[in-house]
Amino acid sequence: MTTKVTAAVEFAQENKGRFVEELKELLRIPSISTDPERAGDVRRAAEFVAAELKRIGMENVRLIETSTAKHPSGHPLVYADWLHAELAADGKPKPTVLCYGHYDVQPAEPLDEWKSPPFEPTERDGNLYARGAVDDKGQMWMHVKGLESLMVAGGGKLPVNVRVIVEGEEEVGGEGIASYVRTHGEQLKADVALVSDTEMFAAELPTLCVGLRGMIYTEIEARGARTDLHSGMYGGAAPNPFVALSQVIAKLKDEDGKILIPGFYDNVEKPTDAELKAWKALPFDEEHYRESEVGSISLTGEPGLSVLERTWARPTLDVHGMPGGFIGAGAKTVIPAKAVAKVSMRLVPDMTPAESFAKYKAYVESLTPKGIVLEVRLIHSGDPIVVSTDNEFVKAATEAMREVFGKETVFVRGGGSIPIVGDFVRELKTPTVMMGFGLPDDNLHAPNEKFHLANFHRGIESIVRFLSGVGG
Amino acid sequence: MTTKVTAAVEFAQENKGRFVEELKELLRIPSISTDPERAGDVRRAAEFVAAELKRIGMENVRLIETSTAKHPSGHPLVYADWLHAELAADGKPKPTVLCYGHYDVQPAEPLDEWKSPPFEPTERDGNLYARGAVDDKGQMWMHVKGLESLMVAGGGKLPVNVRVIVEGEEEVGGEGIASYVRTHGEQLKADVALVSDTEMFAAELPTLCVGLRGMIYTEIEARGARTDLHSGMYGGAAPNPFVALSQVIAKLKDEDGKILIPGFYDNVEKPTDAELKAWKALPFDEEHYRESEVGSISLTGEPGLSVLERTWARPTLDVHGMPGGFIGAGAKTVIPAKAVAKVSMRLVPDMTPAESFAKYKAYVESLTPKGIVLEVRLIHSGDPIVVSTDNEFVKAATEAMREVFGKETVFVRGGGSIPIVGDFVRELKTPTVMMGFGLPDDNLHAPNEKFHLANFHRGIESIVRFLSGVGG
Repeated sequence: MTTKVTAAVEFAQENKGRFVEELKELLRIPSISTDPERAGDVRRAAEFVAAELKRIGMENVRLIETSTAKHPSGHPLVYADWLHAELAADGKPKPTVLCYGHYDVQPAEPLDEWKSPPFEPTERDGNLYARGAVDDKGQMWMHVKGLESLMVAGGGKLPVNVRVIVEGEEEVGGEGIASYVRTHGEQLKADVALVSDTEMFAAELPTLCVGLRGMIYTEIEARGARTDLHSGMYGGAAPNPFVALSQVIAKLKDEDGKILIPGFYDNVEKPTDAELKAWKALPFDEEHYRESEVGSISLTGEPGLSVLERTWARPTLDVHGMPGGFIGAGAKTVIPAKAVAKVSMRLVPDMTPAESFAKYKAYVESLTPKGIVLEVRLIHSGDPIVVSTDNEFVKAATEAMREVFGKETVFVRGGGSIPIVGDFVRELKTPTVMMGFGLPDDNLHAPNEKFHLANFHRGIESIVRFLSGVGG
Repeated sequence: MTTKVTAAVEFAQENKGRFVEELKELLRIPSISTDPERAGDVRRAAEFVAAELKRIGMENVRLIETSTAKHPSGHPLVYADWLHAELAADGKPKPTVLCYGHYDVQPAEPLDEWKSPPFEPTERDGNLYARGAVDDKGQMWMHVKGLESLMVAGGGKLPVNVRVIVEGEEEVGGEGIASYVRTHGEQLKADVALVSDTEMFAAELPTLCVGLRGMIYTEIEARGARTDLHSGMYGGAAPNPFVALSQVIAKLKDEDGKILIPGFYDNVEKPTDAELKAWKALPFDEEHYRESEVGSISLTGEPGLSVLERTWARPTLDVHGMPGGFIGAGAKTVIPAKAVAKVSMRLVPDMTPAESFAKYKAYVESLTPKGIVLEVRLIHSGDPIVVSTDNEFVKAATEAMREVFGKETVFVRGGGSIPIVGDFVRELKTPTVMMGFGLPDDNLHAPNEKFHLANFHRGIESIVRFLSGVGG
């Protein structure tokens, strides 16, 4: 076995340049799942991934359509498997690993802040810059290239059984895959899921993510007058939807960042003392984080809690945009008929999206300003999760990363959400190993997203070693 | 003289169809002064107006450039005059009337709410629909057509001396004309200014506007993090500019609509008891106004004051748009680095833009939320004014409109701002007659702007009679 691992690692090493060029080709496809006009590009990315899975020797490769009457804009899933692993020495079947990733990306706006165009992948200083470089095309491509390396080294065989599922709606809530997991769960049956859509805690520090916040993403629409009105003639009589939304938003959080929705914190589970102690030991300097990562004059959030606690283990609320009215250059004196606030909340165990949304909606409605009609909509949601660290797969992952990085792995949580991880845990009872190779300054969801190429290659080697390790 | 008035009115009557077709041609030019990309169209509109003034026999017709180093995007003024009126019977020179209008228009967004395209003028039910139909191309064209009718009836002579000034920056603050008035005031020397950029109080009710609110149009820019951040990873630590702006805006007005800026009401002059009494006598039903004009579930504004008092004689504050962040369809979980609120305030006598802005800016800055840097910018401003009703020109206007409408003229104020009227009063000491023919439901600055064509024609006749009346 060791020989095969070495051969696979060598193959990956020798093909580094090609792997990166292939990734660039994938990154050139603007598969922005949130933009209906990009549906064709999203599908093109799915076909690109499927073709490569087929080429490297995976079987049953196919696109699974997710559009339904209720979800007409669904993007396809890419499925593949290879289920012929030899029995173990003790005669038992080898485990099955479910490799998950997503081929869709966030919108690239604001475009003028990119140093090189978001869909023209560009190498600078050992990094590959492009929308989706690390989230998640680059990390998903590590899986594909790890499997290719093992296939070649194994003469067409893998050390474990593998299923691959790659979705195209992660950035829009993952409704298609969630529905597939609920209705066709047996097709994804596995002993462990491998997800590479998280980041390392710091450069050179191998990291496993064992907890994720959930979320509810909402819109509040405020409607006042029937049509847009002139603020000269109607100012003083017509309700103003932006003022109304501002009044509502100002009451959602206090000035320290504590959320004011009644009962919102009821089910918040505190991290264990051991976890809190481990977090304190991590190499993290709040002032350096403020200066180099956030770049604001000061940080915000609940007083008395560390940044890691606030971003990993506390619910938070953010406003992402307020469409409506006049947003061009100069002055237009309009009182818009309506305006919208895009508001999301991050959730932690044991909060649930349904209960959290119900409390939020009732509270927002209770704040309705005079003259205004409010509509509160849930756009999508995901469960918060915590993964047990006490199992053989987590140990295999730890071991694989120690071999590649020469260091002990740290356990962290993530502030973001990967809704499908919650579904794997809840629907499939599949434990998940979240082995990610992004860096904290990779600009996910922001201009100038990048992937540190050394981590792309170490990711491939870690995956080769992890799959070999799980295969015994 | 009466014969000439009759002849001019008859000429206007006979040429109704042509006058409307010419106006349509002007309305097809998208002279949106706020949009730098439309600068060519704005100039084309100026040239169109200048050509017609020349054709009808006005003299010294020319475009006056307003661009300067400080104001590089200035749009041209159109100037014309005819200063050869015969002496009056008593040997004194006839008065000079300064006809003012503007050929620029508001942006047309949101485009999908227009029933016919904003720059394809369309007649429906006796109305002409187009951006600028009534504000102010249609009303400015009444001046041109009134002058044409008098010229023809007078055999190439007018009953008074006339200067015409038409600007192209009214919708962006009128910096060009304001500067011209300050530096070349003698070129616009006149005994009275005639402005048709207001509305009638109700259909069939001849109206003179004798007061206008002023305004300050501002932007508040809130900056938090250095770059856009992912709300999963940074929510709970990074400042959110939209939340910050909401907190600020929520403190600018209380929930009744009273402005909370310290000292903001210090110089507010109450209308006289006579004025308040006259306003009460106007045909105005607040419930009908709410239902048919505003269309909201209730009206807003300071309690205990009538709608007319609130919109004519009280300062107000509105938010017009909040650019920044993610405003597309669906969900993007970004904490934007910055966001802007477009906030304007209407001012009443004796408030001044400079003092009001200073108080506003100091107050907004005092509200700066944690982690945020605020920048408060003044985009443009205009003085509030009240015109004395006790002069011969107002009487001539009243008389002209009574002849056309067969009814007594009412005196009202306007809630909107026409900055140049303040400049005429302050810089040129020229009293202004604001004789407008718009209707309250003409959708100024909103989709489906229109001009009731009967009022276009009555406006032309009123102007013919007014200019003849002023000429004795």
